[in-house]
Amino acid sequence: MNTTPVHQQEVICALATPSGVGAIAVIRVSGEGSISMVNAIFKGKNLEKAESHTVHFGTISDGTDIIDEVLVTVFKTPRSFTKEDSIEISCHGSDYIIRQILKILISKGARIAKPGEFTQRAFLNGQFDLVQAEAVADLIAADSQSSHKTALNQLRGGFSKKLAALRTELIHFASLIELELDFGEEDVEFAERDDLRKLIEHLLETIAPLIESFDLGNAIKEGVPVAIIGSPNVGKSTLLNALLNEEKAIVTSIAGTTRDVIEDTMLLGGIKFRFIDTAGIRETVDFVESIGIERSIAAMEKADIVIFLFDSEETFRDIKALSETLPADKHFLFVLNKIDIDINSAPRLYLLHEETIAISAQTQSGLGALTTKLIALVHKQSATDTVVTNLRHYEHLQKTFNSLTDVINGLTLGVTGDFLAQDIRLSLHHLGEITGTIVTDDLLDNIFSKFCIGK
Amino acid sequence: MNTTPVHQQEVICALATPSGVGAIAVIRVSGEGSISMVNAIFKGKNLEKAESHTVHFGTISDGTDIIDEVLVTVFKTPRSFTKEDSIEISCHGSDYIIRQILKILISKGARIAKPGEFTQRAFLNGQFDLVQAEAVADLIAADSQSSHKTALNQLRGGFSKKLAALRTELIHFASLIELELDFGEEDVEFAERDDLRKLIEHLLETIAPLIESFDLGNAIKEGVPVAIIGSPNVGKSTLLNALLNEEKAIVTSIAGTTRDVIEDTMLLGGIKFRFIDTAGIRETVDFVESIGIERSIAAMEKADIVIFLFDSEETFRDIKALSETLPADKHFLFVLNKIDIDINSAPRLYLLHEETIAISAQTQSGLGALTTKLIALVHKQSATDTVVTNLRHYEHLQKTFNSLTDVINGLTLGVTGDFLAQDIRLSLHHLGEITGTIVTDDLLDNIFSKFCIGK
Repeated sequence: MNTTPVHQQEVICALATPSGVGAIAVIRVSGEGSISMVNAIFKGKNLEKAESHTVHFGTISDGTDIIDEVLVTVFKTPRSFTKEDSIEISCHGSDYIIRQILKILISKGARIAKPGEFTQRAFLNGQFDLVQAEAVADLIAADSQSSHKTALNQLRGGFSKKLAALRTELIHFASLIELELDFGEEDVEFAERDDLRKLIEHLLETIAPLIESFDLGNAIKEGVPVAIIGSPNVGKSTLLNALLNEEKAIVTSIAGTTRDVIEDTMLLGGIKFRFIDTAGIRETVDFVESIGIERSIAAMEKADIVIFLFDSEETFRDIKALSETLPADKHFLFVLNKIDIDINSAPRLYLLHEETIAISAQTQSGLGALTTKLIALVHKQSATDTVVTNLRHYEHLQKTFNSLTDVINGLTLGVTGDFLAQDIRLSLHHLGEITGTIVTDDLLDNIFSKFCIGK
Repeated sequence: MNTTPVHQQEVICALATPSGVGAIAVIRVSGEGSISMVNAIFKGKNLEKAESHTVHFGTISDGTDIIDEVLVTVFKTPRSFTKEDSIEISCHGSDYIIRQILKILISKGARIAKPGEFTQRAFLNGQFDLVQAEAVADLIAADSQSSHKTALNQLRGGFSKKLAALRTELIHFASLIELELDFGEEDVEFAERDDLRKLIEHLLETIAPLIESFDLGNAIKEGVPVAIIGSPNVGKSTLLNALLNEEKAIVTSIAGTTRDVIEDTMLLGGIKFRFIDTAGIRETVDFVESIGIERSIAAMEKADIVIFLFDSEETFRDIKALSETLPADKHFLFVLNKIDIDINSAPRLYLLHEETIAISAQTQSGLGALTTKLIALVHKQSATDTVVTNLRHYEHLQKTFNSLTDVINGLTLGVTGDFLAQDIRLSLHHLGEITGTIVTDDLLDNIFSKFCIGK
């Protein structure tokens, strides 16, 4: 992959650091002639004679006036992010200075980079595959340990390597079957059908958990959705606040797309949890009213994990009834609240459900056990270390899965090599589209337009 | 100045780029052992063996997990900004990654830098003097060509060089006079009194324009205050809007400290102008009412430049009366509006004041002449190329001026050498405080606490 010949395009430039107040700002310049272009406006050293990966102090000037004292880093092709000749200008973090330097670069023939254009060039020059390129954007957006880990794993090729290995094996079989076709009527079988079936089954076993991991992967990116369900006055609001207090570091209230939905997110054990419809919880909507039940059911539907909260036999019955409507793929926890209030009844209530966690949201006792359990439920889901977070990857994995299933069915029905070859080619195509081995300009534009400028 | 021996302090670290979404972020690390500290968490190359001003690709790890793929730049003492051993870590622009890297650095013994601490260390190690250090903050805050130019000029030592040269001359005389004191009763005069008087007079001539430049310097930083004064319906609001339209680029409305004061700023010819009390203009308060006149007088007081707007003989008389109350240090322009409406009366009205500019705010004709005149008025003020923008410098220049005046008076009165020596020492002290040759810790803390962290 790293042997792609470097194609140097026209010079692009952009601010690579966030705009706003900071000590320094970094302007990226990349493309054919970028080093001599910057050299023409730089005083201090001859950058064209500088070695790659060296830093030089000097001034940037518009021809008349000095704009700033800067540090310039030279990256020579192919040893740069884009693999092109590149320069990074580290200037004082003033919007005025940044604008002036970009203006001078443009007057010298550069143009402002499109969103993600640096990463796109890196991809086109074989710096990494498409999954890795997409991981760059995810990595920047990552705001929790788990989303960061997933993105970094993808950037470092974890996901791609797995797919590439599978694809290589499949190509081997495809070529054998294509060879059979060359022999036309001779009825030879170079590709051992049993071995092919085993490979395809192995492929399906590998892809299935990747497809399944998408829900989790999405949850990791957006926050694992959790619903707290229970009758009025069981302490839903107190529990939510206690959890939010537990994690003093990062708490955000995000306004949902629906008008009256407020969601709180918090980081527990490096995982982002998103508490659903906390507006409903905070309002402690009357549970027995139909709107309360409807709201609870809606929240359960959106949740990955449901906390059923109760404080008495009556309030247990309410949630027991609701819990029976819960789909099998949801995780749930029965939580007994207010153990500080009625110490005597607590043990009896505790036994109402086999896996009850006893807490007092008020005194915060038992909260540690609850959060440990929440974290464990997510880790249980993420048994596979490679997690798919990208809808595009998910779609192509699903398509790969379908065409591989067609191959298996074909084998069972004993169809001829040319039919098998067609389905295998389709599988290869979809696998290739994920990593960018097979790619169209439209797809690239679509992917990289979601990046920020300067990336 | 650059021969100050480098004193390496404990390792400090901070984000040097703005927080927010960006492709990359830069974390600065500086102090004794900073290179080996980063080397311990970096995989890719032995940074301790790297040469200064070289860039290295690798990963930062917390000991268990990789946090990010980064570029690390090594700066070896004394060839860094702080003159200490320093490292810049260029990572992906994710808040999560930035936090993790800072956490790891802290766990290895670094601490988060105080605001301006990198620049403070640069100053203490003789990278530049205090005026230059302060110019760093001004440079970052600069938002117009003129404020940028002033700050860069100071950063590059323009202001300091002038003062340092004066101080050296004065030290020469001071030492001669101190020598006289050593000879006690012998009544010798090593310091030629006439030469001393000439030097002091030259010093006063140099300092006076610097002191005077403060008002302009401040105006350059904050925007040159302009008031538009005129009777109701002469077109004040239309003129303001036309000017704002003229400069399509940058227009901001800033809420003043007073409840009902709105001020519009705009860049004309690279200079920031601040239009005073545009709320009053927009409301077109009835001029003949006392509140209107009071408001106009208040606006005139705050302005550096007053635009007297009129459209008839009557409205000219109103502003003529007001203009006579204008202090001598204010600049003013008489502007005849609505020349498109009554072409015939225009020439006659034009002659009402010798320096009238004729415009039509409505059709925007003549606006170019008006803005050219506004810009020229500022340039006229800034005849001296060195402009004082800092209140601290202004105060010490004023004190220097006063003690130098005392020296002159002493010379006139023929006081003895010890009295002269005392006043000269005081002058030297104040001059030294400006550039930081004489400096206290409190002063340094006070100056650098106004910087942002990471600078």
